[in-house]
Amino acid sequence: MEIIFFTTNKNKVKELKDMAAAESKNIRIEHLEYDYPELQLEEIEAVAKESAKYINEKIAIKKPFFIEDSGLFIHALNGFPGPFSAYVFNKIGNEGILKLMADKKGEERKVTFKTVVAFCESVKTAPHLFVGSTEGKIAGEVRGEGGFGYDPIFEFEGAGKTFAEMSSEEKNAVSHRGRAFRKLLNYIS
Amino acid sequence: MEIIFFTTNKNKVKELKDMAAAESKNIRIEHLEYDYPELQLEEIEAVAKESAKYINEKIAIKKPFFIEDSGLFIHALNGFPGPFSAYVFNKIGNEGILKLMADKKGEERKVTFKTVVAFCESVKTAPHLFVGSTEGKIAGEVRGEGGFGYDPIFEFEGAGKTFAEMSSEEKNAVSHRGRAFRKLLNYIS
Repeated sequence: MEIIFFTTNKNKVKELKDMAAAESKNIRIEHLEYDYPELQLEEIEAVAKESAKYINEKIAIKKPFFIEDSGLFIHALNGFPGPFSAYVFNKIGNEGILKLMADKKGEERKVTFKTVVAFCESVKTAPHLFVGSTEGKIAGEVRGEGGFGYDPIFEFEGAGKTFAEMSSEEKNAVSHRGRAFRKLLNYIS
Repeated sequence: MEIIFFTTNKNKVKELKDMAAAESKNIRIEHLEYDYPELQLEEIEAVAKESAKYINEKIAIKKPFFIEDSGLFIHALNGFPGPFSAYVFNKIGNEGILKLMADKKGEERKVTFKTVVAFCESVKTAPHLFVGSTEGKIAGEVRGEGGFGYDPIFEFEGAGKTFAEMSSEEKNAVSHRGRAFRKLLNYIS
């Protein structure tokens, strides 16, 4: 089966291809770099769903496709940066998040990382959503060289390691994106 | 002339009605509380334009209408929070912005406040944009009781006062929203 992944983020393409290979699924993922519009909404489920519908209506691609939207939801900051995680990362980076969290201790540092995959089997079908999430804490400082984005400040629950301190395999096994993507792989294969 | 202002922000309605009265224009502003969709885009001009087009297409209201989008662009934070100013304010507030700016001094505290009004004369016309902006610095602390949103941390250039320390008249005379809105009033009257 061949499916199209619409994204402008090469790190995500690599993660998804690694996972498809690791799961030994007979799926070919083709990457199309296309900057589709995203709405300003509080829930990434709704953002991904509306974007998938847009692609379906405007592009009417003849192959199954999916998009992915992820967000970091910091409990003590009312879910910030949430659906605007990519924008906020580009503007203030991990350093900005650490400043906002400087006076937060223990349980106050709790955070949820969440991915929504919106998959359309054909132009006639409504998007099917696969959600994955993972819990952790905002680390006290940037740690590790792996991953991308907020990975160096996301300390996975119980592991004491940030996602950036884990190997790709370790991270994908427990990450929000890994969990959502395996649901997609199981559904289509 | 009667025009419709689509917004969910009552503070903005009050400001605009005050200004229309102050300018003695024969314009009746009707407020419709409608939470139209906004796209995630870097430029508020584009956000406002697309939202106005959406209202025009989906609602096809038979009267002239306008919407307004404003953003706080902090130079040292690469324009953050920009088009997501309302969301960021709801999540981290002025306190969050002050934390992000704690190590910034002098010129590093420069900020632009900007408003875009997108006005549609009829369902057949493309949105006409009116832009207003004003320059200032992020204050060292929250000051003043007036205004709303980021007003208590926006110190107007040269005045030494935050927008929240000014009277409505003082603020409207120099504010981003005042400047954009007067352009609209002059255009339609």
